[in-house]
Amino acid sequence: MYIIAVDLGGTKIGLGLVTLTGQILKSRTMATPVNSPAEKVIQLIITEIKKLLAEAKAPLSKIKGLGIGAPGQILPEEGIVASSPNLPTWKNVQIKKPLERALKIPVFLDNDAKAATLGELYFGAGLGKKNFLYVTISTGIGCGIVINGKIYRGAKNIAGEVGHMIIQPGGAKCGCGSYGCWETLASGTGFSRLAQEKLKKYRRQTLLLKLTGGNIKKVDAKILDRAVRQNDPLAKKIWQEATTYLGIGFVNLVNIFNPSLIIVGGGLSQAGDLIFKPVRKIVRKRAFSIAAKTVKIVPARLKTNSGLLGAAGLVIAGDK
Amino acid sequence: MYIIAVDLGGTKIGLGLVTLTGQILKSRTMATPVNSPAEKVIQLIITEIKKLLAEAKAPLSKIKGLGIGAPGQILPEEGIVASSPNLPTWKNVQIKKPLERALKIPVFLDNDAKAATLGELYFGAGLGKKNFLYVTISTGIGCGIVINGKIYRGAKNIAGEVGHMIIQPGGAKCGCGSYGCWETLASGTGFSRLAQEKLKKYRRQTLLLKLTGGNIKKVDAKILDRAVRQNDPLAKKIWQEATTYLGIGFVNLVNIFNPSLIIVGGGLSQAGDLIFKPVRKIVRKRAFSIAAKTVKIVPARLKTNSGLLGAAGLVIAGDK
Repeated sequence: MYIIAVDLGGTKIGLGLVTLTGQILKSRTMATPVNSPAEKVIQLIITEIKKLLAEAKAPLSKIKGLGIGAPGQILPEEGIVASSPNLPTWKNVQIKKPLERALKIPVFLDNDAKAATLGELYFGAGLGKKNFLYVTISTGIGCGIVINGKIYRGAKNIAGEVGHMIIQPGGAKCGCGSYGCWETLASGTGFSRLAQEKLKKYRRQTLLLKLTGGNIKKVDAKILDRAVRQNDPLAKKIWQEATTYLGIGFVNLVNIFNPSLIIVGGGLSQAGDLIFKPVRKIVRKRAFSIAAKTVKIVPARLKTNSGLLGAAGLVIAGDK
Repeated sequence: MYIIAVDLGGTKIGLGLVTLTGQILKSRTMATPVNSPAEKVIQLIITEIKKLLAEAKAPLSKIKGLGIGAPGQILPEEGIVASSPNLPTWKNVQIKKPLERALKIPVFLDNDAKAATLGELYFGAGLGKKNFLYVTISTGIGCGIVINGKIYRGAKNIAGEVGHMIIQPGGAKCGCGSYGCWETLASGTGFSRLAQEKLKKYRRQTLLLKLTGGNIKKVDAKILDRAVRQNDPLAKKIWQEATTYLGIGFVNLVNIFNPSLIIVGGGLSQAGDLIFKPVRKIVRKRAFSIAAKTVKIVPARLKTNSGLLGAAGLVIAGDK
């Protein structure tokens, strides 16, 4: 038996044929037609799935189910994308029913961070663990909370909005309407915002100006990372400040959950030790010592496959 | 059958004979002999329990078990008080074994905030609920997390240290060694610290000077409360600032847990609407709107009995 995995993002859609043990047999990626109505996008997904199955010579009778991870606020039981910052025209879109009707297989939908958490639980760094947090740091900061081998969802399936912990009450305005949320300070967006602020203030000799071709709006975590590795003083200063904020959010999670494991994924986690070392150091310094000693903060294992394997995880979780 | 409840605090020890439905039949309170070694205190508790049972004509054969709530870091399975800020000489004190040996009944020990959470679960505002947070605001801020009808404990039983969420990274130093923890800003201690700061700055006409007899170190949440109710402008300003910080911590909990219910206890919660109104307002304003609409933030029901009924709850939970 196989699983069809769909990673529905704001810029691209990934499709994959996945085994029950998390091997991706075949996959394809297409641009998300953001200007098309949701119905057209769903139709495109159906057409592409059929093509993928035909190519793989996998009949629908061999498919256990279809999992879809999508950004934003999702109603998994209803199969509805309620709203999504990256798919701005999607408002209360029923996605489960049309897919089930067209393909005659069970369809499981959930938020992409929750899906990625399940991916790590079944196929990644959380394999065999009953309790852990998965934190994803990319444009924003998301989290999946695993308790007793299941995702803790809260009353309306939006538990885990850790990116909107306020850690600087009078801080920068966040997309959520509040101020000083963790992700305004320490997500990819946060790193970039902080760098732009500092560049405006100290327009001096820095590799960042060269790497952005002088257009400081282009500075992002990747460019900062490159400049830090080349020992640029301003980049290092910015990096230190941003990773301190990043670490503070982890301190809070460690004190609140006393977890034995935090798995960290998302684009920014790819910076490796540049991220993990300062975060671990701040946790050791500022969290409760027993909790700090207990927790292991490790990189996600699925990396770029977390979207597809997370979606596959939805089918496995739904089947339990 | 009855339960013996022991509320072991830094200033006083409460003892109670409690029914399985949470009725306190008989109780007594004594000063904690803080300068005596822990063994003597345990001996005192045993003697007083025996007196209480004799007075109540309740033989040990009718006692289901003994529950003890104590402040600080507790190892419930081992029956050990590892360390306690309010009982500074208690380091790794085994309390379960000597009590079981003397009384021949099962003994259950836990942290007082976790005990109070169970008190609300079995006898209070959490009755019949499977998922809620209990937040206690007094000298510090503690929390019990109930998931699926059980307390979520984390890897080392210290989950719920929400008072040590950092919400102002460069803020005042906290007893835990970190800076800007929620409880440095919004617990009873936080209210008092903030008031002292403001009083030093603006030593002008204020009822606070009269209520403290000019000794500003005496200003605490109770005095502030009185001055606010008498419309003192400075007291109102301080109260507004402190309750804003209080509300911000609740915003974080609402975004992280997406709870349907938060029960608020502890001394400061006795201020009633003066606390609940601003906290609810800030949550509505700054938390995710669905999560903010879903959560009910209500006063604890057990009030001054939370210590004893919490301890009784430990016996009921231990029996499940």
